[in-house]
Amino acid sequence: MKVSIIGATGYAGVELLRILHNHPEADIAYLTSESSAGKKISDIYEHLRGIYDQVLISMDNIQQIAAESDFLFICLPHGHAMQVGKTIENQNTRIIDLGADYRFTDTAVYEEWYRVKHTHKNAARVYGLAELHRQEIKTAKIIGNAGCYTTASILALAPLVREGLIDPSTIIIDAKSGVSGAGRSAKLANHFPELYDSFKAYAVSSHRHTPEIEQELSSLAGEHIILNFTPHLLPMSRGILSTCYANLTASTAYEKIDDAFIKAYGSEFFIRLLGRGTYPATKNVRGSNFCDIGWHIDERTGRVIVLSAIDNLVKGAAGQAVQNFNIACGFEENTGLLMTPIYP
Amino acid sequence: MKVSIIGATGYAGVELLRILHNHPEADIAYLTSESSAGKKISDIYEHLRGIYDQVLISMDNIQQIAAESDFLFICLPHGHAMQVGKTIENQNTRIIDLGADYRFTDTAVYEEWYRVKHTHKNAARVYGLAELHRQEIKTAKIIGNAGCYTTASILALAPLVREGLIDPSTIIIDAKSGVSGAGRSAKLANHFPELYDSFKAYAVSSHRHTPEIEQELSSLAGEHIILNFTPHLLPMSRGILSTCYANLTASTAYEKIDDAFIKAYGSEFFIRLLGRGTYPATKNVRGSNFCDIGWHIDERTGRVIVLSAIDNLVKGAAGQAVQNFNIACGFEENTGLLMTPIYP
Amino acid sequence: MKVSIIGATGYAGVELLRILHNHPEADIAYLTSESSAGKKISDIYEHLRGIYDQVLISMDNIQQIAAESDFLFICLPHGHAMQVGKTIENQNTRIIDLGADYRFTDTAVYEEWYRVKHTHKNAARVYGLAELHRQEIKTAKIIGNAGCYTTASILALAPLVREGLIDPSTIIIDAKSGVSGAGRSAKLANHFPELYDSFKAYAVSSHRHTPEIEQELSSLAGEHIILNFTPHLLPMSRGILSTCYANLTASTAYEKIDDAFIKAYGSEFFIRLLGRGTYPATKNVRGSNFCDIGWHIDERTGRVIVLSAIDNLVKGAAGQAVQNFNIACGFEENTGLLMTPIYP
Amino acid sequence: MKVSIIGATGYAGVELLRILHNHPEADIAYLTSESSAGKKISDIYEHLRGIYDQVLISMDNIQQIAAESDFLFICLPHGHAMQVGKTIENQNTRIIDLGADYRFTDTAVYEEWYRVKHTHKNAARVYGLAELHRQEIKTAKIIGNAGCYTTASILALAPLVREGLIDPSTIIIDAKSGVSGAGRSAKLANHFPELYDSFKAYAVSSHRHTPEIEQELSSLAGEHIILNFTPHLLPMSRGILSTCYANLTASTAYEKIDDAFIKAYGSEFFIRLLGRGTYPATKNVRGSNFCDIGWHIDERTGRVIVLSAIDNLVKGAAGQAVQNFNIACGFEENTGLLMTPIYP
Repeated sequence: MKVSIIGATGYAGVELLRILHNHPEADIAYLTSESSAGKKISDIYEHLRGIYDQVLISMDNIQQIAAESDFLFICLPHGHAMQVGKTIENQNTRIIDLGADYRFTDTAVYEEWYRVKHTHKNAARVYGLAELHRQEIKTAKIIGNAGCYTTASILALAPLVREGLIDPSTIIIDAKSGVSGAGRSAKLANHFPELYDSFKAYAVSSHRHTPEIEQELSSLAGEHIILNFTPHLLPMSRGILSTCYANLTASTAYEKIDDAFIKAYGSEFFIRLLGRGTYPATKNVRGSNFCDIGWHIDERTGRVIVLSAIDNLVKGAAGQAVQNFNIACGFEENTGLLMTPIYP
Repeated sequence: MKVSIIGATGYAGVELLRILHNHPEADIAYLTSESSAGKKISDIYEHLRGIYDQVLISMDNIQQIAAESDFLFICLPHGHAMQVGKTIENQNTRIIDLGADYRFTDTAVYEEWYRVKHTHKNAARVYGLAELHRQEIKTAKIIGNAGCYTTASILALAPLVREGLIDPSTIIIDAKSGVSGAGRSAKLANHFPELYDSFKAYAVSSHRHTPEIEQELSSLAGEHIILNFTPHLLPMSRGILSTCYANLTASTAYEKIDDAFIKAYGSEFFIRLLGRGTYPATKNVRGSNFCDIGWHIDERTGRVIVLSAIDNLVKGAAGQAVQNFNIACGFEENTGLLMTPIYP
Repeated sequence: MKVSIIGATGYAGVELLRILHNHPEADIAYLTSESSAGKKISDIYEHLRGIYDQVLISMDNIQQIAAESDFLFICLPHGHAMQVGKTIENQNTRIIDLGADYRFTDTAVYEEWYRVKHTHKNAARVYGLAELHRQEIKTAKIIGNAGCYTTASILALAPLVREGLIDPSTIIIDAKSGVSGAGRSAKLANHFPELYDSFKAYAVSSHRHTPEIEQELSSLAGEHIILNFTPHLLPMSRGILSTCYANLTASTAYEKIDDAFIKAYGSEFFIRLLGRGTYPATKNVRGSNFCDIGWHIDERTGRVIVLSAIDNLVKGAAGQAVQNFNIACGFEENTGLLMTPIYP
Repeated sequence: MKVSIIGATGYAGVELLRILHNHPEADIAYLTSESSAGKKISDIYEHLRGIYDQVLISMDNIQQIAAESDFLFICLPHGHAMQVGKTIENQNTRIIDLGADYRFTDTAVYEEWYRVKHTHKNAARVYGLAELHRQEIKTAKIIGNAGCYTTASILALAPLVREGLIDPSTIIIDAKSGVSGAGRSAKLANHFPELYDSFKAYAVSSHRHTPEIEQELSSLAGEHIILNFTPHLLPMSRGILSTCYANLTASTAYEKIDDAFIKAYGSEFFIRLLGRGTYPATKNVRGSNFCDIGWHIDERTGRVIVLSAIDNLVKGAAGQAVQNFNIACGFEENTGLLMTPIYP
């Protein structure tokens, strides 16, 4: 399969390259960058020197790029992917967008949270989280790859919401992420000495991944869910841990919780169920496409606490995109994604 | 005032030394250590070389040590301070215990969570959190210095609980701490390569600071509160951030939240109110005795999220102990505690 | 090829597993651990859960293990591998020892620095650094895999020593390593809060990798070299950077320096020459088997400074072992070693 | 004493504030910032909230500011302090410049390395390293505060150079610094994910602190010294460790090395001699004005290795400035500088 990466010089783009470079079925056609066109990707990222020295091009001729690519992986800031999608909508090239443009069923929600007009509303698209939408991904022309926080959070709660085991109005998600999720643009907030040896929350109740989580959980619950989502910044580069709280419904026997996870994920390659009383660590999934999930049922308060860990750049971005690509192509879902977590 | 540190070679003990060494009214009499008796404290902690080279002694003659000390700061594992307290109960020496032995009003709760018999049940004592118990601390003979997680969590929630602005049954505390809180004993779990570049939860709903938080908030609420407390381990040495969630009661106007914090802490030297929409960072309090508090009211869910940050070894341990000491002695409460946070 | 890992539960052992698990030509027979025999490796290392759940066995029956293995990768503390080697010396199984027992040409040097008697002196063996000893590795029965600091340091200096471009008596190596090099045994020195946010030297001029570097460089120089080697501990898990200094010999034209590196490594897959004025970063090789080398010629002082970076657990241990394995088996040298560095 | 900080919003400026705020003899008059004039310093640095909320002003009226200040602490990029110095040269205000403008005896050296014309060449000034120039500092009108790397490096080598115990032509300094030394300006090179979990050298043999070290050591040696200086970037905020190498001269008995350090620093408050075979760690001086020095004599190579550690923002910048201020004012040299290192 010929694939191109549109916006290859961000962290998600370069992580895609790490994975696709060793993918037996993917052949990289073009890498684009508006700011670094004409340079080699290995001039921008020295760790690629000698491994991948392809020259970056501009996406000015996106139709030509698309014509020579079976798939475009789009890693652009929100608002740009839909322009690409619109421009090539009559071509056969399929799109996996790692941004937010194609994640929302209701584009009005997108417009409210992202404060930009959606210009490709009628596009057929699917939410790119394989564990929930595998069937639609197989044939989708446009896949809106799930976000990082959202992947960890939705996977943690989906089985319980789907089975009606928790009260959706009580969901609280306290999430923590490494700094790479904020991208590669230098700014004071992410200046090394400012974040080193520190921890804080940001965008409390206003992070744009909130409506994305709500959309997917609402769909599973069959009712409109509103929840609390609080992101925090960890003094490390990679990794997300979501700690999710909800009240059990009155009739929930504890075994049902365990059963729901096994039912949902028992045969999922990339989800590792740690079970009741064992908790995930971001280090255990670092560099891999796994999502580790553990949970605890607190008899004192009648709540369940579900914890999930992913590498935000793999299962939360590039790895998930390749997983979707594999499904869309009919390959084994874990093709090119067998990296063991790097430890310690 | 003559003071001695019983168990001086743990992180809390050595942090006490950092503070007391520059305290104008404290004169250090003895430092004890069972494992390192006969050595200089600066042999155990090289950063103290030339600053403080006193020889450690055993606490075998604790009555003699007490006789020559106005105050004992006890930094021993739980279960040991009450033995000291019992032994010297007829002496005039006052005790500030940095462990858990004297924190609980109901020793049955202590016995249940710590799985050890309480041997000094009848001791008059006060919970050592100045912002809540300043009056009692002034004259207390035994002060059970508040724990680290508990200090951050109680201070975040106390004003709202006291004023009845939140539903106590909905309280969830998601807390994150640096590794120094686990002490100086080497073990695999805290081996550098195991924790570096990682983040995880532990002791979910079973951490011993849970009943301590419940005790104090219940007392303020006038009803028995049960809540969720989830501790996590940050890949750094110092700092605690507590993210606290609760449902607003039906009648709570948002201004009342702000008012409650101002009313409670407006004149507190060590509490810095960041207000609505500004969030604390552990780095902003590092090395200091401050507790920074910010909050957000989520209109969509009807919840308030309160965030608090402390340095676990200062306001969460040694600084708090000195604050209590100052109150107990009638000194200015911030004597010896004017350290500006160290930044960046 | 059937391979077994003797001492699989250290960091080098588990890194071998990460690599061998995806190696197309290696089939893992046994994993041994004396302390954890009977447990699954994934009980000891949770990141392996679901990937590799093999049960660890004791090495009591090492002859039987060897009989069923084409290769043994030995990851034991020094002094133990030579016992294994002696025990199975009449079997056909080949050995790649990641420890020091088989690294020294002159076992008296080993005995002096390691303070243990060598019990397998007559063993035919080769020093396991492919870039210097590829031919001998092809047929060696016992390969003494090069150490971590030594690999980075020897590779940095070998071309200049071999070509006589520097004065060997002026060599100074200032090396810095992540903490994983110290192994997984918990001790105060490597307790997280002790090392976090700190940097220091240790074993100045007395580190056991010193004679290993001297042996290889002496062999290339054709004279006995004595040098300074100073190791330091970085507050991170992985990565070594060696900064090497030497005086240029009088006749050394600067171009000869560049030429020597190109001549030595121009066709080496795992060595990336950054050239004059570009310097390696440990992050650029993290998780990969690359060794990045850059250098600077200081006209003011007449010295050359060569800098090299490796991942101590890959090119400094497990990756190098697999590289040697590939050579010994006649496979492509980079088989199973195509991991792109993980960035950021 | 009335003091003003010119350029208060950099890391050195804010560290000065941390120290001066608790200095019993300093009264802060003005804080200037061109980019943030009109804002409170606590708006720029949240950790100062409630501690120090003074409004920043522009330095447009520098003569007026000087007129109301006994001392100006100048924390501006190089090239700016000399303009200030020139402008107020007829006023009585004394200057402590934390930048490079007044560090060089020979302004031609400054002009060569800094590539800017020196516009205040005739200014009487003294190099601001108290341990070498205490007498001149007492009465100096302009003090060129020693740089961070230079302080650590000069203090490590000065006793040996002064006594002629080492061959000056063999000096090599391998130095490692935390990132705060690079200042607070956001740029890709110092973006958190780029530096986290990485280590590298930069500016090899071309760092501007090189001629500063050479100037001071040459002065002590009575001959022109040229040396190698290699800076590296540690993945932490604060701390410098210098590892210094030199050949002993033929006649140097080892005791003379020890004696030289004791003679030079035996009565220095801020220098802690660890002696032969004990090595400093940056953590042991963190937040304090100490410089820890240890050394090793390598009999095999005839070299001495001296290691020194400082907090780059304290003894390498703000603390040193206050030490100089104390001397210049005739106060006890450690006034306001008694902070114990913060550990762990």
